[in-house]
Amino acid sequence: MITLCVALIHYPVLNRRGETIAAAITNLDLHDLARTARTYGVPACYVVTPLQDQQVLIRHLLDHWCQGAGKELHPDREEALRRLRVADDLAAVKASIRQEWGEAPVIWATTAKAQPAALPCREARQRLAESRRPHLLLFGTGWGLAPEVLGEAEAVLQAIQRKSDYNHLSVRCAAAILLDRLLGTD
Amino acid sequence: MITLCVALIHYPVLNRRGETIAAAITNLDLHDLARTARTYGVPACYVVTPLQDQQVLIRHLLDHWCQGAGKELHPDREEALRRLRVADDLAAVKASIRQEWGEAPVIWATTAKAQPAALPCREARQRLAESRRPHLLLFGTGWGLAPEVLGEAEAVLQAIQRKSDYNHLSVRCAAAILLDRLLGTD
Repeated sequence: MITLCVALIHYPVLNRRGETIAAAITNLDLHDLARTARTYGVPACYVVTPLQDQQVLIRHLLDHWCQGAGKELHPDREEALRRLRVADDLAAVKASIRQEWGEAPVIWATTAKAQPAALPCREARQRLAESRRPHLLLFGTGWGLAPEVLGEAEAVLQAIQRKSDYNHLSVRCAAAILLDRLLGTD
Repeated sequence: MITLCVALIHYPVLNRRGETIAAAITNLDLHDLARTARTYGVPACYVVTPLQDQQVLIRHLLDHWCQGAGKELHPDREEALRRLRVADDLAAVKASIRQEWGEAPVIWATTAKAQPAALPCREARQRLAESRRPHLLLFGTGWGLAPEVLGEAEAVLQAIQRKSDYNHLSVRCAAAILLDRLLGTD
């Protein structure tokens, strides 16, 4: 039984100038990530931001789709969005996973930049299939995860299309591609 | 040299009740599809709608990002969005491809529903690598392509995660996954 959780990090991430910022929530990121997670059997998606007003927004969205009019109109969406969880920071995500799955997760980060010693997806897929530990995959919004978050990961997955001269996928699409590579069965 | 173009169809598509409708343009679909296309070397993405007011919207967006303030602020986005093309219908897409690549395209449709005799991605990838003809991959917005569009395709690609009990990916994410399966090289 594979347990792979996902965290969408809004702080600390980089902006286009390489400065550390808190990125704003994008409504469609949450919908898309939840729908992809449901499709591939990812049990929990953590939406990480320390900004309280942003957390209120997320909870408002979840209330609409998981309890309100959205649930009645669109039950498929509720099935997806109910796996979203709000967290202040990565420490809170790790604590939540430890509490629910009994063990601290193996953390893998993702990046659009070429990295020395990056973990190829094929190898990550195999490790995941053979492991009994929960795993946590980190995605950065904005211009990507800040170095201190990358430093918390046991491995960084190889960039998608690392030989391409263009690597500006949306985080929604990057997450879909990587979950397909790690968990897809066709 | 593989030539795979994409068309995002807004009419004729189905709504949740299975009726044929024209779906509205979603801004982020266009951005995401263009960014994914640029990443995987897809030369043209046709945005298909017969609605003139929707075509005006698309052109307004393209003007902003390909010629206006957006281009200066964000040249990466221009590189992606300049491969979007507006088309009235599938016939216009076919004519455009025939004109530019000298031959009518092989058309493949996509669907989230299990199909008899669907083409597995692995086989599609191989056919694409071995063919010298241009190919065109159709994606439906709303609740998917109408039967008459499916009928125009030489093959329908196997649904992503066809054994899953949930297949409600966003079209943005589905397109990213399928282009990765067909063209991805890591």
